[in-house]
Amino acid sequence: MATTTTASTAPFITDDFLLSNDAARRLYHDHAAAQPIYDYHCHLPPEDLAANRSFDNLYDIWLAGDHYKWRAMRTNGIDESLCTGTSGGADPYDKFLAFAKTVPNTIRNPLYHWTHLELQRYFGIDTLLSEDTAPEVWEAANAQLPDLSVAAILDRFNVALIGTTDDPADSLEHHAALAQSSPYDTTVIPAFRPDKSHNLTDLAAWNTVVESIAQAADTSISNFDDFLDALKKRHAYFHQLGSRISDHGLTHLPDHALNQDEAAAIFDYARNGDAVAILDHDAAGFSGFMLLFFAQLDHAAGWTHQLHLGAMRNNNAWALKHLGPDTGFDSIGDYRQGPGLRHHLGTLAGLETLPRTVLYNLNPADNYLFATMIGNYQGGPPGTQATPGKVQYGSGWWFLDQAEGMTWQINALSNLGLLTKFVGMLTDSRSFLSYPRHEYFRRLLCDLLGRDVEAGLLPPDFDLLGQAVEDISFGNAKRYFGVPLKPRYA
Amino acid sequence: MATTTTASTAPFITDDFLLSNDAARRLYHDHAAAQPIYDYHCHLPPEDLAANRSFDNLYDIWLAGDHYKWRAMRTNGIDESLCTGTSGGADPYDKFLAFAKTVPNTIRNPLYHWTHLELQRYFGIDTLLSEDTAPEVWEAANAQLPDLSVAAILDRFNVALIGTTDDPADSLEHHAALAQSSPYDTTVIPAFRPDKSHNLTDLAAWNTVVESIAQAADTSISNFDDFLDALKKRHAYFHQLGSRISDHGLTHLPDHALNQDEAAAIFDYARNGDAVAILDHDAAGFSGFMLLFFAQLDHAAGWTHQLHLGAMRNNNAWALKHLGPDTGFDSIGDYRQGPGLRHHLGTLAGLETLPRTVLYNLNPADNYLFATMIGNYQGGPPGTQATPGKVQYGSGWWFLDQAEGMTWQINALSNLGLLTKFVGMLTDSRSFLSYPRHEYFRRLLCDLLGRDVEAGLLPPDFDLLGQAVEDISFGNAKRYFGVPLKPRYA
Amino acid sequence: MATTTTASTAPFITDDFLLSNDAARRLYHDHAAAQPIYDYHCHLPPEDLAANRSFDNLYDIWLAGDHYKWRAMRTNGIDESLCTGTSGGADPYDKFLAFAKTVPNTIRNPLYHWTHLELQRYFGIDTLLSEDTAPEVWEAANAQLPDLSVAAILDRFNVALIGTTDDPADSLEHHAALAQSSPYDTTVIPAFRPDKSHNLTDLAAWNTVVESIAQAADTSISNFDDFLDALKKRHAYFHQLGSRISDHGLTHLPDHALNQDEAAAIFDYARNGDAVAILDHDAAGFSGFMLLFFAQLDHAAGWTHQLHLGAMRNNNAWALKHLGPDTGFDSIGDYRQGPGLRHHLGTLAGLETLPRTVLYNLNPADNYLFATMIGNYQGGPPGTQATPGKVQYGSGWWFLDQAEGMTWQINALSNLGLLTKFVGMLTDSRSFLSYPRHEYFRRLLCDLLGRDVEAGLLPPDFDLLGQAVEDISFGNAKRYFGVPLKPRYA
Repeated sequence: MATTTTASTAPFITDDFLLSNDAARRLYHDHAAAQPIYDYHCHLPPEDLAANRSFDNLYDIWLAGDHYKWRAMRTNGIDESLCTGTSGGADPYDKFLAFAKTVPNTIRNPLYHWTHLELQRYFGIDTLLSEDTAPEVWEAANAQLPDLSVAAILDRFNVALIGTTDDPADSLEHHAALAQSSPYDTTVIPAFRPDKSHNLTDLAAWNTVVESIAQAADTSISNFDDFLDALKKRHAYFHQLGSRISDHGLTHLPDHALNQDEAAAIFDYARNGDAVAILDHDAAGFSGFMLLFFAQLDHAAGWTHQLHLGAMRNNNAWALKHLGPDTGFDSIGDYRQGPGLRHHLGTLAGLETLPRTVLYNLNPADNYLFATMIGNYQGGPPGTQATPGKVQYGSGWWFLDQAEGMTWQINALSNLGLLTKFVGMLTDSRSFLSYPRHEYFRRLLCDLLGRDVEAGLLPPDFDLLGQAVEDISFGNAKRYFGVPLKPRYA
Repeated sequence: MATTTTASTAPFITDDFLLSNDAARRLYHDHAAAQPIYDYHCHLPPEDLAANRSFDNLYDIWLAGDHYKWRAMRTNGIDESLCTGTSGGADPYDKFLAFAKTVPNTIRNPLYHWTHLELQRYFGIDTLLSEDTAPEVWEAANAQLPDLSVAAILDRFNVALIGTTDDPADSLEHHAALAQSSPYDTTVIPAFRPDKSHNLTDLAAWNTVVESIAQAADTSISNFDDFLDALKKRHAYFHQLGSRISDHGLTHLPDHALNQDEAAAIFDYARNGDAVAILDHDAAGFSGFMLLFFAQLDHAAGWTHQLHLGAMRNNNAWALKHLGPDTGFDSIGDYRQGPGLRHHLGTLAGLETLPRTVLYNLNPADNYLFATMIGNYQGGPPGTQATPGKVQYGSGWWFLDQAEGMTWQINALSNLGLLTKFVGMLTDSRSFLSYPRHEYFRRLLCDLLGRDVEAGLLPPDFDLLGQAVEDISFGNAKRYFGVPLKPRYA
Repeated sequence: MATTTTASTAPFITDDFLLSNDAARRLYHDHAAAQPIYDYHCHLPPEDLAANRSFDNLYDIWLAGDHYKWRAMRTNGIDESLCTGTSGGADPYDKFLAFAKTVPNTIRNPLYHWTHLELQRYFGIDTLLSEDTAPEVWEAANAQLPDLSVAAILDRFNVALIGTTDDPADSLEHHAALAQSSPYDTTVIPAFRPDKSHNLTDLAAWNTVVESIAQAADTSISNFDDFLDALKKRHAYFHQLGSRISDHGLTHLPDHALNQDEAAAIFDYARNGDAVAILDHDAAGFSGFMLLFFAQLDHAAGWTHQLHLGAMRNNNAWALKHLGPDTGFDSIGDYRQGPGLRHHLGTLAGLETLPRTVLYNLNPADNYLFATMIGNYQGGPPGTQATPGKVQYGSGWWFLDQAEGMTWQINALSNLGLLTKFVGMLTDSRSFLSYPRHEYFRRLLCDLLGRDVEAGLLPPDFDLLGQAVEDISFGNAKRYFGVPLKPRYA
């Protein structure tokens, strides 16, 4: 595609995008750029990975399923039929055009950077997307899609590992297929996300979940012990297919836990077809027990335990009814996080069964709380083999996955912990077009370090700083998660 | 007034005040400076507007009623008799002098900028105010006051609209007078602020409020239906006098609402002369009902619904007793905001009766929560006419109305929503000398955009950015609130 | 020690460290550098002060007891036996070496700055500490320790005052000894910290505390009046030994208080050997009463009342059992702070017995709340003698005692109060090597002011700004706390 150099189309995604100083440029180009991508947490569809999918058009690969874009489009006054389009069935190009109209209105929003970075890195397109340029961008991108299979993308972006997110009741058939035969140099592993198994707010739904777990585990569940055994069996099967990571998404960790007998009693009651409802306090205590149980499975198997805390979901009654969950109606919540973190991690530390753990928070007001919390659970009893950075403060998550949010997370971690031991970036994405977020993160990291060098806050020791950049970009995650990689990345 | 150029009097409020780069200067001078002021929310006294008041001296126009200045003076060790002066009756000049002594101690506080910006823009005074310069400033400013009627101010500052803040029980006589005949090109409208009508913490006070609403509505209130009818009647009368905005000030929105029958029962009990107290949970549920009721009135009439959340008021028992409310003893509170926002807005969305809404928060720790919350309520059912930026994240409010607070709000909105659809600044002021705050906001906005251009984070597309600046300064508010303006601003 | 100038050893702690502009350099070198240190709150051991202690090696003076360093070492994967070393009894050099290995991993953490600033200012060592340089640093520093007695340190760092932190039951023998005869120009005073006297969470421990207070007060305590009398007596004895400051460390202030009769009833019950537990609400109300009681003692004696709010302590069950408290397992908590501040300070204001007060918060999400809260309690009834900055927002505390945290505190105070009346920095330290933190704070303060001058946000009035810097560095604290100083600093 030809790009002109008028103001409206001059590329602003240059080689030195985000790199404001010489030290930053040296760190990025010499140390960060060549590192492979270790994407330990994402929501890519395993079926697309197993099928080495190719995409029909830019809408399919870029807009379908992207609630970030839908939120921006709605704010811009675009009709819902052109966003999710579930009721309308609008033409893909019309939806793309509606997005293109919205893009110039996203200045200073991360979408403005993601959009143009993705067009540049996947399609070589420097044109700024707008209503005017939509036709040429659509055509130029679509023309390249036949060459952009999943395999081509993973190869080009140097992706060493992908960790998907999977329910214990999931058959993992696509992961099994990839374990048998894979077209990729990329290691693909599932992660164990059992949130539904201990969510007692809707007992009918929960009972269905219990049945689906029984089925997946090829067993029957008639009491609490059976339930725990079935979950253990699924955990072991995930392990067999390469999983080394669990994931838990909660508004906040419970600040107490039932003991096993109490949890069994709640379980029995909730399994009873006539059960009406569980008291909030007991539901939290049941979750408290289950989360300790899962953490101890993780610890025993040498896994990493991920906790995503703080989302307030499905806040629009109309949208939940008509569009369903995960369609862009979620927010940052203001839950108290301290007591639950203290209870969950402190209890596990006391039992000497604390696994490697990564904490993610969604409300930036809690950044400093989280960044000090990890410091309470490093190391362990004398003589135990220590993992550097055993408890991690995870990279800016969801709404915080943009320059301001990332900067805050990096600064909080730097000031209150050891940045050098950070396992770094992940996409958390449903899209194969999100890999440039690793580049974005690395540029930002190098810029922050470079600014400190230029300001005399750090010595210009490029061996030390370059090593830190390489570690945070790739090496730390590779060592920390300990998943065997394919030869290209081993 | 002659100004010398020694260090202590060199003007620092230059043409390029706050504009640190070329792009910012271009955006401000070419796009922002000439835009009219659309001051959709303030606390100016309607009687001063109706009377086209002139002021006797700098104390009357500048210090009387300004609790920001009183707080600074108290902190500087100034005796209360020279602040509010309610008990002392000190001489206006002595109070002015006490403020002048305080000003050099306000460096880095917004008062330092407001003070000198206001002296410059209203009186052409570049002298830095201090004990030494107080006499000359007093004289020079007072000499110009005869020419500074309200009409002269509104004309000079290009004020297209003023929205005052009014109680449903207010007669609106001054607004009615202005509606009949106005000396201004400025549209002056009331806003409907019914906080007292559902505050059941003091039942005697509340019963008086109910009576005053009955009187204003020229009706009698013997049951809950009468009460709602009277409020509807007042809402309609506000509409008739041009109002298109309601306003609600609360610590936080209730996270639940009584239904109409339950609310009626609480109403009946509270109206009973022997009633002792309402349980907190029921008082919150009553407010929950009333707020949904008011929002639905707003929606039906095409109004905008403003919510000011998070102030903790009257925190000093001595001051409340001796000086009364609104004398500078209020703070930022730490109320949970998420559940109430979700309840109120989510319910209205489910009922398809959500009006255009502006949310303001006082605790900056909640900025990101608010900025993600608005994204849940944009757009609406397919096919409904959408308002771009239907739910707004309002400009930095009260303690946040300064460079740091404004920057945070602009950044949060940018990162999590669409800055380009922002309705921008308002004074929220009791003073006619506050219009330079719009200038201050615009300079800051242009500086942030300009810095991004200089850093390569935005393309140097001055058509796009200039349009955004013009829209945020004036155009968006004009379209969003939809109030008919006088020919000069139409 | 010879220092080379290769990248890895080039000194980055230059004369202009942290000073990014000419105005900042002028303010620091001309106004800040020469000011004495007024360290009104620290945790130095009185016995070391009384003994004019010298130190055997760099471990003793630098690492023993420093939980900041331990947290970093644990995160770096260092075994606990080389951190606290309580169970291991490792060699001091080995522990030092383990720290030295960790230092390069602390880039961007305040430890990186503290470490090299302390090596430079106490020992003239510019070498960057690492595993490689550990032997030379150990040797060079140890060689100088014989000349670094406490007296030499206090003299070199120009320390006008030290305020330690002491329990009411403490004999204060070391303070008494220093009152009799001191080798220092430094005034050393105790502070009254009675937290244990009203902590009813462990009744057995609390009863022991009551007995120890009785013993220290040379009396017996058989009822609540006796208890209050004993505490009064200790307060008076602290006063006699120069104390003018109390200190209170709490998760958050209670939002209510028992009256004296109710408190006496709780006291009697808690003193009963058969007492089981006090309800949380009553325990909080008892603390509420006691805190008002202590504040009124402070007010009557002309003391300053310090409140440290927001820590969540002992979060690791293993560590608490094996290593004990204060070993680096504490965090920032998310307690609600508004209601308790309002209750405690608002009540005292209403009673006209509010002492000078300094508020410290640990969660930076509360910065703006605290900075607005102080503004509610300045001044007082007309005609009372006012203390400028009567209620202070204290300097960045604990986890916030680093460049980012300090900057946030200074900005919050500037925007919401009067920076010019700020009593400034304190070390809060257990170590005699922490005095460069005052230098660090002053450099940062001057840099912030200087940046504002360079950006045109402040006039280049170096009389005004220089005076502010001198006041914040020393003069304000000297006047505010009002403790008589030795001739060198009087």
